[in-house]
Amino acid sequence: MSNHFADRLTEAVAAKGAPVCVGIDPNIERFAPELARQIDPAEPVGAVRTFCMDVLEAVAPVVPVVKPQIAYFEVFGAAGVQLYFDVVARARELGLIVIGDAKRGDIGSTASAYARAHLQGPDAVDALTVNTYFGADGLAPFVDVARRNGRGVFALVRTSNPSAAALQDLTDDEGKAFYEHVADHLAEIGRGEKCIGAGGLSCVGAVVGATWPEQASRLRERMPEQIFLVPGYGAQGASAEDCAASFRPDGTGAIVNASRSVIYAQPQPAAAWQDAVTAAARAFAEDIANALPAQP
Amino acid sequence: MSNHFADRLTEAVAAKGAPVCVGIDPNIERFAPELARQIDPAEPVGAVRTFCMDVLEAVAPVVPVVKPQIAYFEVFGAAGVQLYFDVVARARELGLIVIGDAKRGDIGSTASAYARAHLQGPDAVDALTVNTYFGADGLAPFVDVARRNGRGVFALVRTSNPSAAALQDLTDDEGKAFYEHVADHLAEIGRGEKCIGAGGLSCVGAVVGATWPEQASRLRERMPEQIFLVPGYGAQGASAEDCAASFRPDGTGAIVNASRSVIYAQPQPAAAWQDAVTAAARAFAEDIANALPAQP
Repeated sequence: MSNHFADRLTEAVAAKGAPVCVGIDPNIERFAPELARQIDPAEPVGAVRTFCMDVLEAVAPVVPVVKPQIAYFEVFGAAGVQLYFDVVARARELGLIVIGDAKRGDIGSTASAYARAHLQGPDAVDALTVNTYFGADGLAPFVDVARRNGRGVFALVRTSNPSAAALQDLTDDEGKAFYEHVADHLAEIGRGEKCIGAGGLSCVGAVVGATWPEQASRLRERMPEQIFLVPGYGAQGASAEDCAASFRPDGTGAIVNASRSVIYAQPQPAAAWQDAVTAAARAFAEDIANALPAQP
Repeated sequence: MSNHFADRLTEAVAAKGAPVCVGIDPNIERFAPELARQIDPAEPVGAVRTFCMDVLEAVAPVVPVVKPQIAYFEVFGAAGVQLYFDVVARARELGLIVIGDAKRGDIGSTASAYARAHLQGPDAVDALTVNTYFGADGLAPFVDVARRNGRGVFALVRTSNPSAAALQDLTDDEGKAFYEHVADHLAEIGRGEKCIGAGGLSCVGAVVGATWPEQASRLRERMPEQIFLVPGYGAQGASAEDCAASFRPDGTGAIVNASRSVIYAQPQPAAAWQDAVTAAARAFAEDIANALPAQP
């Protein structure tokens, strides 16, 4: 088995039958009533731990990838950060691929410190989201640590939020958008030494929001070797068909994320909230798989 | 005394006589020999704590502001994050203004979680650096939490690294650069409700690298109410005169940062490394103050 991130991801997707990811965004205000009653106001991180570990158990049989969002852990201080790393470790024990959604970004030795914090050693995630505002020399330290450790990065290209357009869509005097420049930098960096796996995909991926399917189609052509991490499905309004624009013609090369629509799924009367999470994850995986060409 | 971030910063600068900031970027490979010998390889965070607390004591009499860089703490996991918050608390006890250099960035409830993690409650820094790639609705949650808590933000506009130009300097068909668009968004957001302090400066500041003084001058005109946080002095090559371009004509409105050139200053033979840090901080403060118009 290849230790390359892209190859490991491809295998995990094939094993579960759907290129989907569940975002772990714990928000105590949205916990099911039975769990909300267990929250100790002086130590809320205990209930957050229960929530996260139960969500991992609920989705692990159904999806190949989870994406803990570190902001929801950082808000509890150092104890929250410890829980984040515990969730990463438990997810990997369950055989899940883990994308750490931290959107870190800086330059030089600072970027290198972030990369080592998240992509190296026993606590490392399989891939980390990174911010591309600094350009190529902000990205290089992350890519360097990732490829040496069989890990990956997903760099922001076109985000799914409404006001992204006002900046990322600015065009130069030849009509090329800012996010297209970012995409070209990324495609080039992602072809660097030892970046491409046996399956032809790079360890340098791209975050491309599902809410802009036309842009996603054009970005797919600009970045043939990048795995797209696709937010925006479900709660943010994108359909499975919108998400399909981010895939290669053969239905590979992207991972669609859903967070709130899965982890806060409404349980049936008298049923456990964890069962609702499993059911929502299964419906999500089937919806995405059905919008793609059948896999060989 | 005003509880507005910009007013508190202005008072602190006046009290110390120089608009400077020392970056706390602990890197055990650069520790002085006597401290390096104390590093326990199984628990290096102990020596990092000694280093940071000693640096705070060494610079507190001389400079108004410190800027811990969280990446150098995050690399030690949850224990490092706890130390980061302990350093913030100790710096505030010493009367220093603390800028948390975390360059966080996201949207919606995620950005709000980061903002609450860093800008609200007993562990809060006085201001946080944030990444602007998401545009206005990525910035809004940070500004919202900051102004309600008498805190500030410094948003990336033009960074000091070499490859920043390839992206941030891209121009539209009217010759306006990407970073100028970012600056205009920032200036507008920074004029929002309750954002401007009694002294006329906003709690929404801008990170503008000193290594591009011509661009800094033009940005100064576009963002008259923003406090500029200016990296790039010293180790990154910018002079005090380069930094002066980021100030308003009266010598206010910016804070120059130096990290490595101060905290890793070479001690005289047989002298303590902490004394070298104090001396380097004093030389840095005088160099910047001398490059600016005399304050009334």
